[in-house]
Amino acid sequence: MTLIMKGSEVAAGMKAKILDELHTLSVTPTLAVIRVGSRPDDLAYERGILKRFDSLGLNVKVHELDANISQSEFDSAFMNINNDSNIHGILLFRPLPEGLSDEFAVSHVDPMKDVDCMSDSNIAGVFAGKSECFAPCTAGAVMEMLSHYDIPLQGLNVAIIGRSMVIGRPVAMMMMKQNATVTICHTKTKNLQEICRRSDVIIAAAGKALMLTRDYVNENSIIVDVGINVDANGKLCGDVDFENVSSCVKAISPVPGGVGAVTTSVLAEHVVRAAKMKEMKV
Amino acid sequence: MTLIMKGSEVAAGMKAKILDELHTLSVTPTLAVIRVGSRPDDLAYERGILKRFDSLGLNVKVHELDANISQSEFDSAFMNINNDSNIHGILLFRPLPEGLSDEFAVSHVDPMKDVDCMSDSNIAGVFAGKSECFAPCTAGAVMEMLSHYDIPLQGLNVAIIGRSMVIGRPVAMMMMKQNATVTICHTKTKNLQEICRRSDVIIAAAGKALMLTRDYVNENSIIVDVGINVDANGKLCGDVDFENVSSCVKAISPVPGGVGAVTTSVLAEHVVRAAKMKEMKV
Repeated sequence: MTLIMKGSEVAAGMKAKILDELHTLSVTPTLAVIRVGSRPDDLAYERGILKRFDSLGLNVKVHELDANISQSEFDSAFMNINNDSNIHGILLFRPLPEGLSDEFAVSHVDPMKDVDCMSDSNIAGVFAGKSECFAPCTAGAVMEMLSHYDIPLQGLNVAIIGRSMVIGRPVAMMMMKQNATVTICHTKTKNLQEICRRSDVIIAAAGKALMLTRDYVNENSIIVDVGINVDANGKLCGDVDFENVSSCVKAISPVPGGVGAVTTSVLAEHVVRAAKMKEMKV
Repeated sequence: MTLIMKGSEVAAGMKAKILDELHTLSVTPTLAVIRVGSRPDDLAYERGILKRFDSLGLNVKVHELDANISQSEFDSAFMNINNDSNIHGILLFRPLPEGLSDEFAVSHVDPMKDVDCMSDSNIAGVFAGKSECFAPCTAGAVMEMLSHYDIPLQGLNVAIIGRSMVIGRPVAMMMMKQNATVTICHTKTKNLQEICRRSDVIIAAAGKALMLTRDYVNENSIIVDVGINVDANGKLCGDVDFENVSSCVKAISPVPGGVGAVTTSVLAEHVVRAAKMKEMKV
């Protein structure tokens, strides 16, 4: 029987831990969401955040900025939020609309509030394997999923498909920290099927609908699908051909209902941790 | 016939390019070497730097600080050098003597002078694959070696043995930037021989004398040996059993006379680039 790794189960497990942690705090952790304009993807993620944070008793302040905001207005709006002592974490939707740069925000964000890893400090921390930094939330969600289902990574061979700064690279470093042996694959990888087939774990983050077929797996494969794509019929799907692959592997996460359902929980955990770090510092 | 990749040949090739670059500058690029105490390893590397920089017509200012210096004295000495507009690059020998922290130096070093990659800014830049950052010099030396011998990495499978922040991890990112498919191996890797044997390129940075034997290679292996160890007879040696391996691979770098002989050239190239960036900024 294939283990289906469900995001809702992972999120439920995280909820218990987050609530425990909340009880040790004297403030309500608060996230500032900064959204410039109203891209549908951003709005969808924002709704997910609001729902999750509400269910955990955490605060969210949404700052919607006009898509035609000037650079200096944006930078100063960002700094006001960054300097607000009532804000514990900041999520800035990126990329910003054309013509607007995130350079100032990225270089000025307080690393202690940088809950989705845009600062050099957190990026370098992930690269070096420091545990006190904030990794990108989706990368964190992959790790939470494997941890929830008690899959110890030490000594396992892991193939990661995709080398982005929000998934492929940080997941590689986080897996290596747990003593996995990681191969980072990408569009220029020559023998991708073979590499995947002989790996114990496959992290699919290629952003290519249904590309991972039966030819890429073995009966003991553990597959985490990070893809969010739309198939030929306009239906949401992952990078994995779930229908054909799921019956012949050891474990697999579906899309939807997999990693995507865990990301907002990781964001919540980060905001709670940020609030805790602030309390301990004071 | 096995290609023996010699550090002296790589350094000679780099010298020509560095001298060309120098002619475009109106100042003499100057490196500050900061050494606390006098560890033999540091002194040996310092001699190498002085010799190389002298041969290129570059300046070096050695700042020898007492091994018993206080933290505040060290931090302020560091800042004086960091703020000196006549200094283009800084090399701080680390680790510092016990009881002395490099935290202040690491967080305050000017990223434009940070020619051996200790700042978050450069570390994050290497992780993200930015070309304008300074990578650790030894990692740069590995890349220069492969480039000098015209070994294009795109599509090749590379096994890196070792996951340090000065070699394994940065080399992995730099190779990936050139579209290699990289597997980062370490002490907890289970099937290291097999992974190495099926790779096109092996970067040996395990720090374990002569560990890489014939069992790890194939007739087409390209091997860069980054190890600096001492064998049972007290002789300098690499991580690779050169005597037995060199005859049955495609290309290999020796120790001594390999990567180690390139590191100071990379440092020189970084200092020249730092001086150039400063001139262009003014």
